[in-house]
Formats: sequence, C-alpha cells, structure tokens
Amino acid sequence: MKGFASDNYASAHPDVLAAVAEANAGHAASYGADRWTARAEELLRQHFGEHAVGFLVFNGTAANVLCLRAMCRPWESVVCAAGAHIDVDEGGAPEHVAGVKLDAVAAPAGKLTPELVAARLGRRGDEHAVQPRVVSIAQSTEVGTCYSVDELSALADVAHEHDMLLHVDGARLSNAAAALGVPLRALASDAGVDAVSYGGTKNGLLLGEAVVLLRPQLAEGFVYLRKQTMQLASKSRFLAAQFIALLEGDLWRRNAAHANAMAARLAAALDGAAGVRIVERVEANGVFAVIPAAATRILQADWRFYVWDPPSGSVRWMCSWDTTAEEVDAFAAAVRQACASTPGPC
Amino acid sequence: MKGFASDNYASAHPDVLAAVAEANAGHAASYGADRWTARAEELLRQHFGEHAVGFLVFNGTAANVLCLRAMCRPWESVVCAAGAHIDVDEGGAPEHVAGVKLDAVAAPAGKLTPELVAARLGRRGDEHAVQPRVVSIAQSTEVGTCYSVDELSALADVAHEHDMLLHVDGARLSNAAAALGVPLRALASDAGVDAVSYGGTKNGLLLGEAVVLLRPQLAEGFVYLRKQTMQLASKSRFLAAQFIALLEGDLWRRNAAHANAMAARLAAALDGAAGVRIVERVEANGVFAVIPAAATRILQADWRFYVWDPPSGSVRWMCSWDTTAEEVDAFAAAVRQACASTPGPC
Amino acid sequence: MKGFASDNYASAHPDVLAAVAEANAGHAASYGADRWTARAEELLRQHFGEHAVGFLVFNGTAANVLCLRAMCRPWESVVCAAGAHIDVDEGGAPEHVAGVKLDAVAAPAGKLTPELVAARLGRRGDEHAVQPRVVSIAQSTEVGTCYSVDELSALADVAHEHDMLLHVDGARLSNAAAALGVPLRALASDAGVDAVSYGGTKNGLLLGEAVVLLRPQLAEGFVYLRKQTMQLASKSRFLAAQFIALLEGDLWRRNAAHANAMAARLAAALDGAAGVRIVERVEANGVFAVIPAAATRILQADWRFYVWDPPSGSVRWMCSWDTTAEEVDAFAAAVRQACASTPGPC
Amino acid sequence: MKGFASDNYASAHPDVLAAVAEANAGHAASYGADRWTARAEELLRQHFGEHAVGFLVFNGTAANVLCLRAMCRPWESVVCAAGAHIDVDEGGAPEHVAGVKLDAVAAPAGKLTPELVAARLGRRGDEHAVQPRVVSIAQSTEVGTCYSVDELSALADVAHEHDMLLHVDGARLSNAAAALGVPLRALASDAGVDAVSYGGTKNGLLLGEAVVLLRPQLAEGFVYLRKQTMQLASKSRFLAAQFIALLEGDLWRRNAAHANAMAARLAAALDGAAGVRIVERVEANGVFAVIPAAATRILQADWRFYVWDPPSGSVRWMCSWDTTAEEVDAFAAAVRQACASTPGPC
Repeated sequence: MKGFASDNYASAHPDVLAAVAEANAGHAASYGADRWTARAEELLRQHFGEHAVGFLVFNGTAANVLCLRAMCRPWESVVCAAGAHIDVDEGGAPEHVAGVKLDAVAAPAGKLTPELVAARLGRRGDEHAVQPRVVSIAQSTEVGTCYSVDELSALADVAHEHDMLLHVDGARLSNAAAALGVPLRALASDAGVDAVSYGGTKNGLLLGEAVVLLRPQLAEGFVYLRKQTMQLASKSRFLAAQFIALLEGDLWRRNAAHANAMAARLAAALDGAAGVRIVERVEANGVFAVIPAAATRILQADWRFYVWDPPSGSVRWMCSWDTTAEEVDAFAAAVRQACASTPGPC
Repeated sequence: MKGFASDNYASAHPDVLAAVAEANAGHAASYGADRWTARAEELLRQHFGEHAVGFLVFNGTAANVLCLRAMCRPWESVVCAAGAHIDVDEGGAPEHVAGVKLDAVAAPAGKLTPELVAARLGRRGDEHAVQPRVVSIAQSTEVGTCYSVDELSALADVAHEHDMLLHVDGARLSNAAAALGVPLRALASDAGVDAVSYGGTKNGLLLGEAVVLLRPQLAEGFVYLRKQTMQLASKSRFLAAQFIALLEGDLWRRNAAHANAMAARLAAALDGAAGVRIVERVEANGVFAVIPAAATRILQADWRFYVWDPPSGSVRWMCSWDTTAEEVDAFAAAVRQACASTPGPC
Repeated sequence: MKGFASDNYASAHPDVLAAVAEANAGHAASYGADRWTARAEELLRQHFGEHAVGFLVFNGTAANVLCLRAMCRPWESVVCAAGAHIDVDEGGAPEHVAGVKLDAVAAPAGKLTPELVAARLGRRGDEHAVQPRVVSIAQSTEVGTCYSVDELSALADVAHEHDMLLHVDGARLSNAAAALGVPLRALASDAGVDAVSYGGTKNGLLLGEAVVLLRPQLAEGFVYLRKQTMQLASKSRFLAAQFIALLEGDLWRRNAAHANAMAARLAAALDGAAGVRIVERVEANGVFAVIPAAATRILQADWRFYVWDPPSGSVRWMCSWDTTAEEVDAFAAAVRQACASTPGPC
Repeated sequence: MKGFASDNYASAHPDVLAAVAEANAGHAASYGADRWTARAEELLRQHFGEHAVGFLVFNGTAANVLCLRAMCRPWESVVCAAGAHIDVDEGGAPEHVAGVKLDAVAAPAGKLTPELVAARLGRRGDEHAVQPRVVSIAQSTEVGTCYSVDELSALADVAHEHDMLLHVDGARLSNAAAALGVPLRALASDAGVDAVSYGGTKNGLLLGEAVVLLRPQLAEGFVYLRKQTMQLASKSRFLAAQFIALLEGDLWRRNAAHANAMAARLAAALDGAAGVRIVERVEANGVFAVIPAAATRILQADWRFYVWDPPSGSVRWMCSWDTTAEEVDAFAAAVRQACASTPGPC
C-alpha cells in the first residue's frame, strides 16, 4: 500500500543502492579514514561552500542534536518555531542529550522572522535566564513552506547582530533548493547560515544525514562530539557512498524536484475541490489541508497519510522521489470524491 | 590493502547486500512499523530467548549506552573490566549520555570474575557513593578471550544476588557463540544475562546492532529511550533486512566461525616463531602478541594492524568473515621473517 | 534602602538566627545524622502528612530540580504554566540537570487548570514525543495568586487519572496556606499533591528549602539523588535548626500572614488611585500593577522594586515578613503621587 | 559525644555566627548584589591573586562540579588520584552533572605527580577517547598529606605544557596553607593553579565554599553555570558574611593551624605506641593509622571516628578548629590502652 504518509516511507533510489554495492569491495579503513568518506566530505564542501566541513551521521535527530551541541554552551538556548521537529518530534533529545533549552515561538507558516527572534532576547545578561544562542529553522519547514534566500539572510543577520548563530534543520533542504531553483550553498554559506543538518534519507538514501558546519571554529573538537553522541559509523564508506551518489551529479536535485512537482500536482488537482481547504502554501513536497473528518476516515482505508493537527483536523500529504503522477491523480480523485460526499465543515 | 587491523575494515557479506536490495521495494511504513522489522525482532526472540525483546540501532556505542540507560537510575554505576570498550573507546558516551559512572576493574584476560565484582560492592547503601547496579562484560572480550557458559552464569548469579544486572557487550557475540559451539541464547537468556548489545557490523553487516533486553521490565519505555538516544531509524527496514540475512539461516555463525578459524590459523602458524609471544588465549577472532617494535614497523609498511598497548608493544591482529587463508599464511610468513630478523626482546 | 523588590531581600527572622546559635554547640554528626535534622524531618511529616518524607536542601531551584528528578524518567516531561519559575528563572537547570523537557502553557492568573493539562496529553504513547508525567504548579503563583484547595484537588485528580504526578513549587507555600487559612497539609497530602518544594528562605530563614515527597515510592533512592544533585549539607543541623524555628510553633504562619497582610494593605491603599491598575488578584504577598513608565522611573529613585513584564510595563511589589505598615503606607502615598502627576495610560 | 570523625562534625566558629548576625540587618539586594558579597569577593581576590574571581556556593561537591564545568568541554576528562573525593565521594555528580569522565590514577600518599599525569596522555587526538583537560588534586589530600609549593608548580607546569588546567579541591586548603606556612595565593595563583574549590565549612563556617577562578576566561559565563548548577544563594549576604569573618583577619589560618596542631599532637602522642602504625605522613589535620580491628571496636564505643579502608583496617582521625588538647590527650591514651590490650597485627 503506497500513499502520502511520509517521504521516509519511500524506498532508496537505485543509484544509491548501486553505490553501496560498489563500495562493498574488500577492506577499507574504518571510522571514516576511507576514500569514499573523503570524497563525500569534498562534495559537501563543493555544495555548501569552501569553508563547509561535513560530518556523516545516522539520522536527522542526531544531526540536529550535534549541531546544537557544537553551537551551545550549557546555559545557552535555542529559539525555534513552535511545532519544529526539534521541539516536538525528537523525544526530548535536544534537552536531554544536548542539555539545552528550546524557546519555541508561534510562527505563521512555520517560519521564524527577525521580529519574532528579536522579541525573545529581552533577558540577555540576566543570570537567572538561559541565554539565546541559536536560531534554528527548518528549510523546507515542517508545513511544507520555504524560506526565501532573502528571508534566510535576514534571519542570519539578526542572529549575528545579537551574537547568535543560525542553524538550519535541512531534513528537506534539497526540496527547498529545488523549489527555489538555487544551489545548496545559496541556502547555506551564501545566506550566512552557520550550521546545517543536511538530510539524505528523505532525499533517496537508505539512511544517512550530514552535519555541515560553515564556520571553522564550530568544527573544533566536533569529531569528539560525534563519537560521544554515538554517530560515528565504523563502516563509514557505506554512508559516504550514498552521499556520493546523491551529490556527485544532480540526483539530490532530481529527486527533490520530482517530489516537489508531485506535491504541486496534487495541490493543483485539488484546486477548488469541494470540502478541501489547503492551509499552507505548497512550496516543497507536502500538502497540508483541512478536510472533513469523515473524509479522512474514508480515505485512510485505502491510502496512508497522517492527521497533522488533530484539533483542527488538518492532514498532511507528503510526496517523495518515487511518488508517481498516477498515484497523485488517483489520490486526488479519491480525495475529491470523499470530500464531496461528506457533510461537514472543512 | 587488506590486513588485520579490525573486523570493521571488512566489507558486508553479499547476502546482506542482497537482502537490502530485496527490501528496497516500494513504500514501507517508517520507524519500524514494517514487515522486515517485525521479522528481525521475531528472529532476535528466537535466537535470544522467548522473553527477549530486540531493538535495532545504528552502532555499538549506542547499543551499549542504551542498555545502560535501560538498566540504571541516575545514581547507579557499572562495574566493568579495565580496558572495556565502554570505558576507553566510547568517547565518554556512557558518562555523558547515560549519566552513569563506570568502575573499571583490572581483570586478567579482560574477564571479570564474581570475586572481582564482589570486591566493588563495599559501599552499598552509602549515600555519598554511586551504587553498583550493572556488571558489564564483553563477550568475546576486547582481547579475544571468551567467557565460558559457566563463567557467564556465575557472573549472572553474583549480579542477581546483589540486586544487580548483567550486561553483555556482544559486539562480537557471534564469534563467542561460534567459538563455544553454542546457540546465542546459551550466552543470553539461558545464562541469566539481562541485556545484550548484539553486534551486526563486525559480523558482516553494512551497519547495524541490536539491543536485546531479556527482562520484560527493562523494555518498558525503551522505545522512548531509543528515540531520545537518536537511534530510531526512519527507514528501519534497511537495518532489519540485514539482520534477517544474518539470523534467518546460519550466516551469523558461518561468518563468525570463519573469522575465528582464521585467527586460530594465524596463531598456529606463529607457534614457536622466534620473537613472537602470543599474550592472550586465542579464543575468538583476534590474536594479541608482543613482537619487537622494529618488526612492527617493518610489517606495517605492508599490512594494516594496530599496536594495542604502546607501553608493552603488544599488537592486535583481527580476522574477519572475509579474511582468507592465503592472507593469513602470507601474513604469518611476513611476521616470522620480520621478527626473526629483528633484535630485541618481545 | 528598603522596598518591595522581593521577599528574598528580607532578613532572617531573629528566632531563626537564635535557633542556629543554639544548634552551634559542640560536635554533631554530619550529613543529617544529627538530632536537629531528625526533628526537622519529624516536623515536616507533622505539617505535610503522615506519609510525607522531607529532605533539606539549599535553595529553591534545587528543590524543584530534585522533585522533577524523583518523579520523571528521562523521556518524561512536565506541564507547567508559562512564566513558571522552573521555566523562566532557573537557568535551564530542569533541562540540563534533570534532563526533562518542560511544556509551558499559557495560563490565566498563572494557574493551570485540568482543561489546560488535558489538552497537552494528545501524544501519549507516541515514541517520537516526550511523555507528560508531571503537572507542576506554583502555590502561591509567581503572580501572587493562590490555588484553592478545590482547584488543587482537581489538578491532582486529572494528573492521577492520566498516570501523572502533581508537583507544587511551594517557594511561597506558607503564604498560600496563611492566605487560605488552612494547614500546610491541606495543600499537600490532603489535596492529593505528590511532591512539594517547600520554601524556607522567603519565609524568614537565612537559607534553606525542603523537598517533601508525599508518596513513599518517590523517596526510594532519593538520598542518592540529593547527594548527586549537590544538595547534601555536611553541617545539616544548621539548615535543620532553621526549619525547627519555623515549624515547631507557628512562625511559618505568622511570617507569611504578615507578608500577606502587608500586600493587602498596599492594594487597599491604592484602591482607586489614578494611574494605578492592579492586574492580578492580591491573594498572597505580592501586588502586580500597571503604572505609567514615568511613574516607575520616579518611584525607583527611592524604592526598590522590579518591572515584571517590560512589554506591558507591569510592576511587582512584594511584601515580606519584615515589611512594616509604615513602609507600606509611605510607599502607597509615593505611588499615588507619582502616578497622579504622570501622564500616560496605565 | 565528640571525637575525631570529621572536621565537618565541628561547630561554626563564634566569630562566624556573629558575622551572620551582623549581616542580618534589614533588607539587602538578593543574589549577590549586596555589600557583603562584594566584600567577600574582594577578600578572595586579595587572598588568591589579583586575577582571582570568586563565586560563593553552598557545598564542596558543588564547588568541584562547577570548577569542572567551567574547565571542560563535553568530551574532555579529568585526571585525579584514586580515592579522590570527586571520584568516590560525590555520588557521581562529576559524571552526571558536569558530564565529564574521570581518570583516577593510583597515587602514593594520595598525590599525583607529573609522571603519573604524563602517563595518561597517550590518546590525545584519538576521537574514540575522551581528551584529558584537567588535572584535579586535593590540597591537603584526602589522606592528610600536602603538596609542597614546588610539587604544585610542577603539576601546573605539566598540565600547561599539555594544554591542560590544574584544579585544586581545596576543601582543606587553609589547612595546607597553615601547614606549609604560606599565604593562600602561594597555593593558587603563584603556583600556577587555574581553579580552586576553596573550603569554608571545615574551616569553621556554618556552610559555604567558594569557587575561585584564576584565569579570567574561565569566569566567562560562570554566573550562568552557577545558577544552572543550583548554587546561587538568594540571601547571598549570609554566605558572604561568613567568608568575611574567615578572611578579613586571620581566622582562616588560626582555625586551620589549630586543627593541624591537634593532629600533630595526636600523632606525637601515639609515637611508638604498641599496635599503632601511622600510615600516612601527618601534614595537615588528619591522622591515618592501622590499628587492630578489635581496638577499633573498643574505641568506637566511646569515640567517633571512621574506618577509612575496610580491607586494610586503617582508620581516620580528623581534628578540627574546635578540637581541644585535652580531647587529643584523652583519646591518645584510650588508643594506647585499646591497642596494647588487643592482640593481632596492625
């Protein structure tokens, strides 16, 4: 049963699997002292900026926690949007493992603004309060929207003005870059971003993410943090080979652009549909909509997707690199039918 | 360049890669709600005992830290052998992430005994001291020795008598089971062990380990710990498929037995060699020897291996599932030659 | 310069100092094995309920952190009111030291309700989310209001229905009990509260707080937690003697009732004053008001007090056991004069 | 019942209590913004060196944990002597709260040497291992010995050569300074020490210790660490007044010198006593001896003291500022009698 539950329900891209198989040849030094890891790190530098230092890790929560550990001293805190993955979907890892406090701010469209950040800085220098050090945003956001390059730069500016750093949870950074039609570095070094959690898994890998640090001083001692945070792979080549498959050519962008196109196709197919209200701008690979609860129940008998916000009844439909136009069209037809036949407000 | 540096320099077994490819078919629910994960968990239960509950994780440090987190309250401590991986090779993760103190005890052949454990319990009930809660051992040990089933049972008994739990760091548990000619459960449930870090990576996987909890109460809430400890894979099927390849048949044992046999072959080939002193019993897949420092330098020009203990000059030669008899024989000849031509004590 | 800045600007009550001097007689066993500590623990039991187990600690942040450590496993979280001391005034200690995540909820009058708590429980059982375990409230609250006994009981009920525990940050519990005209136990055991941070410092001590655990199982291992959390006093008798002075007779209530009466006197004296708007009900020992910013500046030249909420311009006037009626009257007159002469909205 | 159990069984010096009473006059700003705290900080600077920055805290474990937090990044470790208070008597606080790993080294007379430290640095730069950052010693040591000024300087030199810092657990620093006949700064700034936990409680206070940082950069952000570590006293003046009593004149030295003299008197009185073997040099205020187990039992019926090392049967006799010559003489007579009448080796 396929569906629109999550881009991590998707399989790995065949080229990724082929790259893993190719790397599976004889012995290689462990813990990253192999040629695949060196190449993956070089590619991360090419894509993210000449000062970028990349580190491969296992999953997205770890990438985020490691970025926070690299950026924060124990008394420092992180301003993020309410509903951010680090705030609500990481099992308390930022607090428990990184030991930092999050300050989650209600943010329209899931996006922080310079004004929202500035409003959280009133207690700088007060020893009773944690001290804001990091602005953390998701690009694309958890609700499928994107920060423009200008919006990113403005956030970097406000962060740096206040001696803070800008972190990007880029679990879907490729989707944002594809949507905006820019290279990855436009959303990283060039925009003044300081650290990125760069997502591979949702972009077509078996598993694997990268921490990309854009200020050299953040990388000091980072290898110790990665090891202590349990993210140093012994057979590192198998993570690295996947990133090579993604970044050597433009697979990262093709996969992301396809997923984005499928979300746009779905949104277009539902335009004007009775009982369907799309509640966030469709800028990446997700569609967020409110439909009647009864329609949700009908649809979930045949299609996988999640109710996003139970109180409002909003649902999330995610597209991935392997979503097909046929699936989108069939699902859109099913949604139209279910909603049309279902009474109730949406 | 191949060699004897580490069993994690080895590639993945072709059957493992094939299983990953087989699992790469269409969508699957993420975070373990897929049929591969269910099957892997079932196989872990079959191999470890009917009360065994298995959880897949990314690497060995994480498996160990998670076992300690499941077993210890914040004021409790862990008795382990000096030189244990958790004590010296995990970057402080047990202390920093699990928040527990380790009590590392000098242990001949890397093996704790009931007497060594009992000697650490003198401050039970003293509020100023951490309270011993876990006995943690490695099976096979970091120096290539194995606990017999009786030795394991005796440690479990002393632990349980004192309201403690027995943890086995089984990064090479398959090697121990193969060496002892017993099923995995003989080294787990049947011996009274409470929790196992079961290693896949060194046994032929791309990556992947399992936490296997043998007391139901230890598993309570464990899914939250795994998530918070950043070890929940979104595309869990790709970890699971590898474990299925390992455990569905006897690949785990074949891989381990072959590695063990290669170590035995190496030790036999060096028996009586001038300048070579094997310093630990060769019971699993590693050979530990003292050779002249000059011989080490000569050999390392052509072969990869590590100096294990710089002060004594001991070296470690590890064999893996893909070590060949030809490599062993060539290396043994090289060692004989290098040591014979090298003056100095060994 | 006296004033209305904080009840912790106050001195210690002379009886407290006398008790310390009385305890300073010869040697006494350290770490609580002395007769004063035993007596203080007995008095805590008498005041808080027959199952109450009391532990002396140094300050209020520590009392709160220790209560949370005793109640939460690592993946569990704490629902509290936005603006709670544990959320905004403890330097991240709950997150960093106890390792728990707080879920701060906007709460009118600083008071949680069963409905507000129930609305935070939507992700019970979801492994990606922290699991709510504690409802933490302040009594009296940070804005000078009190929970009635019925309100407390209702919160305890909703907590227990959902397998949660109720914690009371009682830095000013004596003020609440005095205000409500009830014994301390009416706000503790009798109301179904599970753990209390009982404040001594603001109630007339030199320093000293108590953790009072009302469920025996919470006290299991607590002595280790207290030691590890760096709250075990070696010369415990000097903390204990102060609590004896407070609790042996009714000093705790007299001190608190006086402070409450002074706040009521201040509020009454400002009733109808031009430019003064009291913004929270005056139920304990603090008065929260909005006055013109210019009036605040004029007044702060002569009197100590804090601006509470810079955006709204609200101020906090705290009374303590040693505030005098003369001070209140003089200050009220100054406020009337400053506000009357100052243009601007309040 | 008096005795020789611990210098923290002692009362507070009358001058200390008088200073507290003197400070108990009206209101004072809280959290250290009072004149007593300013004066105490000034006195710490005078005693410890012009770059010394002092911070008052509640107890010794906290002072040690705070020093380690100020000096270590999360992956860094602390070399200390086996039996160090931080290693065996602080309930795991260094590991759990500071998150650092300790490397406890067997050390004759409880004293580290440059050679012992240098031997622990073999894995600098190895990402799998924690990285040594702090050498932590106790002065005087846990077994009553002192580091000479030259020994201290040599340890500071070896630490600094390896980019490490030297921490002194000075719970009994006054005793060491009195014993060596030097000012405190000779054991701090002048010897190259980087951070000191300076003990007040055992030196005659009710309670109170100080963290004294001797490198300005260590103090950066320290106020946030102190608050988060739950060591910021609201009525700080009452801690400060005690330190003023200690440090304004020479009370610190008089108290310490008296305690030292009593220990010397005890050791002298037991010189040559049958069955008594003094096992550590008596250089501060403690006497460590081996006596027959039966004698220990006889003596403990009348006198309080601790068995120090149960396997060897050694005992610890501590003297304090309020130990009298009469008590020492009576106890020495009792020891002579008990040991003379008791068979068995010592």
